[in-house]
Amino acid sequence: MTGLPRHPRFVSLEGGEGAGKTTVLNALREALLQDGREVVSTREPGGTPLAEQIRELLLNVPVGGPGQERPAHEKPAAETELLLMFAARAQHVRETILPALERGAWVISDRFTDSSYAYQGGGRGLDIAFIAELERRVVGLQPGLTLLLDLGVAQGRERTRGRDLAFGNGPDRIERERDDFFENVRRAFLARARAEPERVRVVDASQPAREVAADAVAILRMFIARAAAETA
Amino acid sequence: MTGLPRHPRFVSLEGGEGAGKTTVLNALREALLQDGREVVSTREPGGTPLAEQIRELLLNVPVGGPGQERPAHEKPAAETELLLMFAARAQHVRETILPALERGAWVISDRFTDSSYAYQGGGRGLDIAFIAELERRVVGLQPGLTLLLDLGVAQGRERTRGRDLAFGNGPDRIERERDDFFENVRRAFLARARAEPERVRVVDASQPAREVAADAVAILRMFIARAAAETA
Ligand SMILES: Nc1ncnc2c1ncn2[C@@H]1O[C@H](COP(=O)(O)OP(=O)(O)OP(=O)(O)O)[C@@H](O)[C@H]1O
Ligand SMILES: Nc1ncnc2c1ncn2[C@@H]1O[C@H](COP(=O)(O)OP(=O)(O)OP(=O)(O)O)[C@@H](O)[C@H]1O
Ligand SMILES: [Mg+2]
Ligand SMILES: [Mg+2]
Repeated sequence: MTGLPRHPRFVSLEGGEGAGKTTVLNALREALLQDGREVVSTREPGGTPLAEQIRELLLNVPVGGPGQERPAHEKPAAETELLLMFAARAQHVRETILPALERGAWVISDRFTDSSYAYQGGGRGLDIAFIAELERRVVGLQPGLTLLLDLGVAQGRERTRGRDLAFGNGPDRIERERDDFFENVRRAFLARARAEPERVRVVDASQPAREVAADAVAILRMFIARAAAETA
Repeated sequence: MTGLPRHPRFVSLEGGEGAGKTTVLNALREALLQDGREVVSTREPGGTPLAEQIRELLLNVPVGGPGQERPAHEKPAAETELLLMFAARAQHVRETILPALERGAWVISDRFTDSSYAYQGGGRGLDIAFIAELERRVVGLQPGLTLLLDLGVAQGRERTRGRDLAFGNGPDRIERERDDFFENVRRAFLARARAEPERVRVVDASQPAREVAADAVAILRMFIARAAAETA
């Protein structure tokens, strides 16, 4: 528990590569739109023009013509990566998330602060207390509901491989990490769910896409019903 | 006092816009080269390919053809600016400064962490304790010697105006701040010098350039002599 305020119209989707976050985001968005709600869907790192440019630095997409691709710059150190993630998030919160929440919209974010605990904490081994300090100092809020799409590392790789072949994309800098990195990421995500079980709900993402989406929508509906009962 | 280790071959130059940092850096570099020392001169934000790209995000140089210039992205929030500065610095320390110091070179940096205390702390009003936490967590060292080139705000503006006219440059995002911002920056720099007087030496930058450079070189020579006496 960090004691940060949680916003009841702010939902985040978390999980490893290929777990189905983007797929589930679209399902949640549809469900909310059908209820006649305004929905802002966004993603991290990113979500504002500046934050998207920080994303490009983080993912280090190669530059140069065909056959001459080279990294645009050197690899960020773990600490650089952490601060770039939180710089982008600080901007995302202030420019996109808070204004949307303030005007009454729902916000669904494909990744949020839990990803920093999982990737920079679990994956890179940076101090969790420092990550919590950054969260407290520059983020200042949490989603009311976080869906953790939990999937085995090998299965996630299968899925992104399929998608990347279909779209002709290669893996980005973080996707090129080794399996033990992603095992640590997965463990750290599950630890977040154990530590904050009312906020972080685990969904079995190894099920067929339709069932994962149905579970996610059901959890969202229960969350809305409970919030309505509490404020009634 | 932060208690961070200070490196005796690491020198930083600090001060407001147009105080003469780049001019003095060249004089110090010459003095060290004449002694037959290896010198790496570098700057912040920047100093590595990735950190220079972060610099571009921070200074937000307009894009678009003549008559169609527009900012490349929205203004960073104060917290975003702070974290981008420290992200660039984390990278600069690990990729450029530490490797140079480890092979025995001198490093002179045009700005370093004191600038974050002055601009993001004094100028933007962010919490000094958080800046100190970032310094401790991701920077981890201080220069052995910092020269603070102290100059009145109006005089600094005069000088950069002269230079910008000569080179056809416009002011960047931070240079466009108002005078009271820069007065706060100056005060915060002087507070750093009062708090750490053996490290931060104030130079009267209102003197003619030749005298400022001579003062700076004399302080560097005394610093080297004292270090030699201490290790003798
Ligand atoms: N439950 C599922 N079963 C099988 N395939 C799925 C399932 N969910 C998504 N997929 C497919 O797996 C791939 C990855 O899904 P998706 O892009 O939604 O995951 P993601 O978590 O957003 O991935 P990334 O981390 O790369 O953004 C896509 O090709 C998608 O169609
Ligand atoms: N002592 C001085 N007296 C008069 N002019 C000076 C003096 N020192 C430098 N200048 C001139 O003032 C301008 C600014 O100097 P310089 O670029 O060294 O400052 P700076 O601190 O590096 O500025 P910036 O913060 O913009 O990088 C230059 O045109 C330089 O030639
Ligand atoms: Mg996705
Ligand atoms: Mg300069």
